[in-house]
Amino acid sequence: MRQIPTLAPLPARLPDSVPFVGPETLERQRGAPFAARLGANENGFGPSPRAIAAMQAEAGEVWKYGDPTNHDLRAAIAAHCGVTPAHVVVGEGIDTLLGLAVRLMVAQGDRVVSSEGGYPTFDFHVTGFGGELLRVPYRDDRQDPQALVARAVEIGARMVYLCNPDNPMGGWHPPEVIEAALAALPDDILLILDEAYAEFAPALPRIDPDDPRVLRMRTFSKAHGMAGARIGWAIGAPVMIRAFDRVRNHFGVNRIAQAGALAALADTAHLDRTVAQVAAARDRIAAIARDNGLTTLPSATNFVAVDCGGDGDFARAVLTALGDRGVFVRMPWVAPQNRCIRVSCGPAGALDAFAEALPHALAMARQGASGG
Amino acid sequence: MRQIPTLAPLPARLPDSVPFVGPETLERQRGAPFAARLGANENGFGPSPRAIAAMQAEAGEVWKYGDPTNHDLRAAIAAHCGVTPAHVVVGEGIDTLLGLAVRLMVAQGDRVVSSEGGYPTFDFHVTGFGGELLRVPYRDDRQDPQALVARAVEIGARMVYLCNPDNPMGGWHPPEVIEAALAALPDDILLILDEAYAEFAPALPRIDPDDPRVLRMRTFSKAHGMAGARIGWAIGAPVMIRAFDRVRNHFGVNRIAQAGALAALADTAHLDRTVAQVAAARDRIAAIARDNGLTTLPSATNFVAVDCGGDGDFARAVLTALGDRGVFVRMPWVAPQNRCIRVSCGPAGALDAFAEALPHALAMARQGASGG
Repeated sequence: MRQIPTLAPLPARLPDSVPFVGPETLERQRGAPFAARLGANENGFGPSPRAIAAMQAEAGEVWKYGDPTNHDLRAAIAAHCGVTPAHVVVGEGIDTLLGLAVRLMVAQGDRVVSSEGGYPTFDFHVTGFGGELLRVPYRDDRQDPQALVARAVEIGARMVYLCNPDNPMGGWHPPEVIEAALAALPDDILLILDEAYAEFAPALPRIDPDDPRVLRMRTFSKAHGMAGARIGWAIGAPVMIRAFDRVRNHFGVNRIAQAGALAALADTAHLDRTVAQVAAARDRIAAIARDNGLTTLPSATNFVAVDCGGDGDFARAVLTALGDRGVFVRMPWVAPQNRCIRVSCGPAGALDAFAEALPHALAMARQGASGG
Repeated sequence: MRQIPTLAPLPARLPDSVPFVGPETLERQRGAPFAARLGANENGFGPSPRAIAAMQAEAGEVWKYGDPTNHDLRAAIAAHCGVTPAHVVVGEGIDTLLGLAVRLMVAQGDRVVSSEGGYPTFDFHVTGFGGELLRVPYRDDRQDPQALVARAVEIGARMVYLCNPDNPMGGWHPPEVIEAALAALPDDILLILDEAYAEFAPALPRIDPDDPRVLRMRTFSKAHGMAGARIGWAIGAPVMIRAFDRVRNHFGVNRIAQAGALAALADTAHLDRTVAQVAAARDRIAAIARDNGLTTLPSATNFVAVDCGGDGDFARAVLTALGDRGVFVRMPWVAPQNRCIRVSCGPAGALDAFAEALPHALAMARQGASGG
C-alpha cells in the first residue's frame, strides 16, 4: 500500500462533512422517489417557457464553450438592475460567487461574521479558505443586521454575511434597516448581501452600486426557476467586480444556462406570474399549518417556516415522518429556529401531498415524543 | 471616494490577466461573427443526437438542483472506465477539477512542475493558490514525461502536470512512456494526467486506479462535443477522490449537463463516428497545409498544429490575417512551438473557409515580414 500524497495543510484539516445532502440521496436511501420535492427552496412553478425554449435551442450549440465574459447576459442584467456591465459578474450560481468572494478576501485566521444558523455553504467556504467564523444569533427569528455589523466592527472582521430576505426563516428587513446597517459599516469590511430571494421581497434597499463595501448576490435559481442551471450574478463596485477575474473559472458558466438566463430575464410576465403563484402557495402552506394547529412565520421568500410547536427533536421527527410519506422538506439547524420545518412553495399537487402527510407526520412525532 | 476593502494578500498580488480571450470577444472587436470557429479545440461535429435530446428533455426539469453526488453519472463513468464510483469525481469541466486539485495540494510557495508552453489554465490555478511554477521545455514538440518527473523530484515539487495527448501541439506518448514516468514518481508527488483528448489517442496507459499518486482528468468537452456544458471527471484513488468533497461546490454541476453526459456516454456509435470524422478532418487540415507548402505535426487530438515555416511573429501574423478573414484559430505561446498555428478539426464548411483563407493569410504575413 502506497503512502498517500499529503494534502496542503489547510485542506488537510478541513472536515469531511458536506453542507447539504441532496434529495436524490434520500430517495435512494428510502428506495422510492419523493412525491413532493419541497425541501431545497426550488421553484416547482418552473422556468419561463421562453427560457426552456432558449435552452432547448441552445442544446445543439453546446459544442461551443460559453462566452467567458458573459457579455450579453451582463448587459441585460445591468439594464435590469440599473447599473453598468462593469458592475456585474456572472458566475455558476451564488454558491460559486460566495466561494470566490471569500477567496478574494479571507486569508488564514481572518475573521468573518455570519448568523448562527445562517447559510451553511457560506460557512463551508469561510472554513475552506481558513477563515475564522463568528456567529451572531438570530433575533425574533430574523438575522440581525445591526448586530452583525457591530460584531464585525468589534472583532475586526474582513467580511460580514447577511441574507435578505432570509434563508432559512423567510423573514425580511425593510430597506431602511439594511441601509442603516450599511451606514455603520467601515470602509475596510466587505458586506456580502445575499439576495437570492430578492424577487419575492416587497422592497429592496437602495445601495450605491459604486460602493466598494458591498457585493449583492442574485440568482436565476429561485424566482426564475433555474436552480439546476447554476447561474447567478453579483453586483458591486467595478474595482471589486474586476477582482473576480483573478480567481474565477473564466469558461465556467454553462452555455445553455447563459441562453436560458437571458430569456428568463426578458420574460417579466412569467416572473410576475411566478411571484403571484408563490404568494398563493405561501398562503396555502399557512392554511395547511393552521388546519393542523400550527403557526407559520411571515415570509418574503418562496418558502415558509412552519413552527411545529416543539423543540428541534420534535421538528426533526415531523420532518422524518414527512419524508417517510414522500414529502421532502428541510429544517433550520440551530435552536430556537429548529422548532420549525421549512416548506418550499410549489404547485398544487406537491402541496396536496404535504397537506395529506402533515397530520400523520405530526401524529407520529407526538407518539415518539410521548415515548410511544 | 471610499477606500476599497483590501483583498487578501495572495489575491492582492495576482495578475489581472486572464488565461484565454474567447472568440465572442474577438467577434465583437472585429464587428462580425467568425465563419469558422477552429481555435478552441471545440468539436464542431457536435454532441450525440441522444445527448441533445436528453438535454432538451431536461430543460423543463431545470428548476431542480442537480444531484450533488452525480450518482448515476459516476456509476456510468465507472463502468465505462473499469473502476468503481468511489474512484470518480464529476466536476464542472477539467478546468474546475484542476483548480480543486491544486487547492487540495498547494500551499503558498509550494512547487509545481509543468511544461513551458503547457496549459495556461493549470498555470493560472497554481499561481492563484500561491504555488511556484517551474517549467520544463518541450522536447521534439512534445511534453517530456521523464524530464517533468525528474524535475519534480529534483526540486521537491508537490505536483506535476502532464497532458497526454498534448495540448497545444497534438502529439502523444505511447502507454509505456507514461507508465515509465509514473514508475519514477515518488509517493509524495501527485501527477495530474490531463487526458482531455483521450478518446482520440491510439492507446492509453494502464494505471492502477488505486494509485494515490495520480489523478486522470477526462471531459465531455472534446470527443463528446459538449464544451459548453461544463462537465468532466477525474479518476483517482478513493482517498484522493473523497478529498474533493472538502473543497468542491457540491451542487456545482448543471443538471442539464448531467443528463446530456449520461446520454453521450451511452452513445458509443456516435463517439466512434466522431473519432472517424475527426481523423478525416486532421487529414484534410494536413492536405490544406501541404497545398500551401506547409507541414503539420502528428496529432492524436481533435486539432492539428500547422508549422507556418517562420518564427512566432510570422505565425501570429498568419493567425491575425486568418481572423480578419473570419477564421478563428489559436497558436502556442512560447518558442519554438509558436512557429505553429493550432487548427481545430471541424465539419467540411469550416475547413473550406480555412482552405480559402490560408493562402491569403500567408501572403499577408509574408508581405508583412518583408516589410511591405
